[in-house]
Amino acid sequence: MIKERVKMEVIGLEIPLISGNEEYTLAELISKYPLEENDIIVIAETVVSKSEKNVILKDTIKPSNEAIELSKKLGKEPEVVQVILDESNETVRLGPNFIVTETKHGFVCANSGVDESNTSKGIKPLPKNPDKSANEIRKGIEEITGKKVGVIINDSMGRPFRKGSCGVAIGVSGVCGLWDRKGEKDLFGRELKTTEVGIADELAATASVVMGQSDEGIPLVIIRNAPVPFKEGTGKELIRKKEEDVFR
Amino acid sequence: MIKERVKMEVIGLEIPLISGNEEYTLAELISKYPLEENDIIVIAETVVSKSEKNVILKDTIKPSNEAIELSKKLGKEPEVVQVILDESNETVRLGPNFIVTETKHGFVCANSGVDESNTSKGIKPLPKNPDKSANEIRKGIEEITGKKVGVIINDSMGRPFRKGSCGVAIGVSGVCGLWDRKGEKDLFGRELKTTEVGIADELAATASVVMGQSDEGIPLVIIRNAPVPFKEGTGKELIRKKEEDVFR
Repeated sequence: MIKERVKMEVIGLEIPLISGNEEYTLAELISKYPLEENDIIVIAETVVSKSEKNVILKDTIKPSNEAIELSKKLGKEPEVVQVILDESNETVRLGPNFIVTETKHGFVCANSGVDESNTSKGIKPLPKNPDKSANEIRKGIEEITGKKVGVIINDSMGRPFRKGSCGVAIGVSGVCGLWDRKGEKDLFGRELKTTEVGIADELAATASVVMGQSDEGIPLVIIRNAPVPFKEGTGKELIRKKEEDVFR
Repeated sequence: MIKERVKMEVIGLEIPLISGNEEYTLAELISKYPLEENDIIVIAETVVSKSEKNVILKDTIKPSNEAIELSKKLGKEPEVVQVILDESNETVRLGPNFIVTETKHGFVCANSGVDESNTSKGIKPLPKNPDKSANEIRKGIEEITGKKVGVIINDSMGRPFRKGSCGVAIGVSGVCGLWDRKGEKDLFGRELKTTEVGIADELAATASVVMGQSDEGIPLVIIRNAPVPFKEGTGKELIRKKEEDVFR
């Protein structure tokens, strides 16, 4: 009457803290884990940014007048606001203590995804090119292990209409980003009602359940036996163009 | 160097087609599976709606002039548009072939979540009170099995800014909906940067990876060993109030 059809595993891994001064690459580090063919590796963006030394030293930032004005409204340090502005194409909305921007990558998110909890060392933007980072990590892993894998770089973002952050895929390689199911039929031979699935976002959210907060020490998650297409995908294909969005 | 910290299982289950005329309840059906303490059971909303006979016969619907006018713009049947309007508090945006509404539950989504692929039998809205449905199913399961579980009713919804649908939690019982982590500290003793996590949405998305499309025959997913709080939650707590939303 009830039959098991799929059994997917979601494995949360602790790794050493990444500073950017490691003598190994992320691909080398991840390959130490006994990976299997078609594993999907989800990595918290913060780890990727740090490993790429994408951290801006606070005393090198000269806040503009615009950043200083905005910083008062938002209750943020002018240096942080300057980085948020530098990382953005445009401001989409101004909230009580956040700015929603479109980032240079095209993501619409709060504060350009810039990590506000800056350490003494600096302020951390999102990785510069998450699809490229995901691709490099994947190629590295495949070279070392000889196994075909997928790589997703995820981040937690807030959303309109719904409270709470949710994991999304900002970089994708080796696995489908947006799953186009147009033309497929359901059990009754009818066209599927949902034709485009944000599958990499759902996988990113899956990993986020296990990561909790990446700073808890589980910034790396392996998703094994996921029933998803392993055709080439990107994080970019998940971005809705401004002119196709009724909320822009 | 790399250490396994969490191992979560996501089990997709095939169940018989639900028509609403079953001699068993959903709780009785689900309890046939060997559940474990703290399993989270995610159920596709379509199954819940059908089991509650929440299907509107097409020939009982009299479309209003408003519905008829709108149906031409949207390329939908007037009866479907009438149900969409009946299910909504207000129209939020009008798209080329969809209406974004706020449903009577408070969800902002396309077409009030009404299933357009209506069969000969009728048109299927979302469950009337998904939190109540989730709670009844949970209580039923706990009574039969003697095990404490969580229940989430999920649906696939589109999103502003991002392409592709993504699973969200429309009903929640026995597990946290919105996870408030304010005051918690990270590895460095700093306050967590993300303080509210939409954990039930992330769990709903996790299940959606395995469900694919619920009509594929896997409308039921068990999430085992999820590192999440089992305190009482609701789907309602995930809804952002209109006046607190910069996109309304």
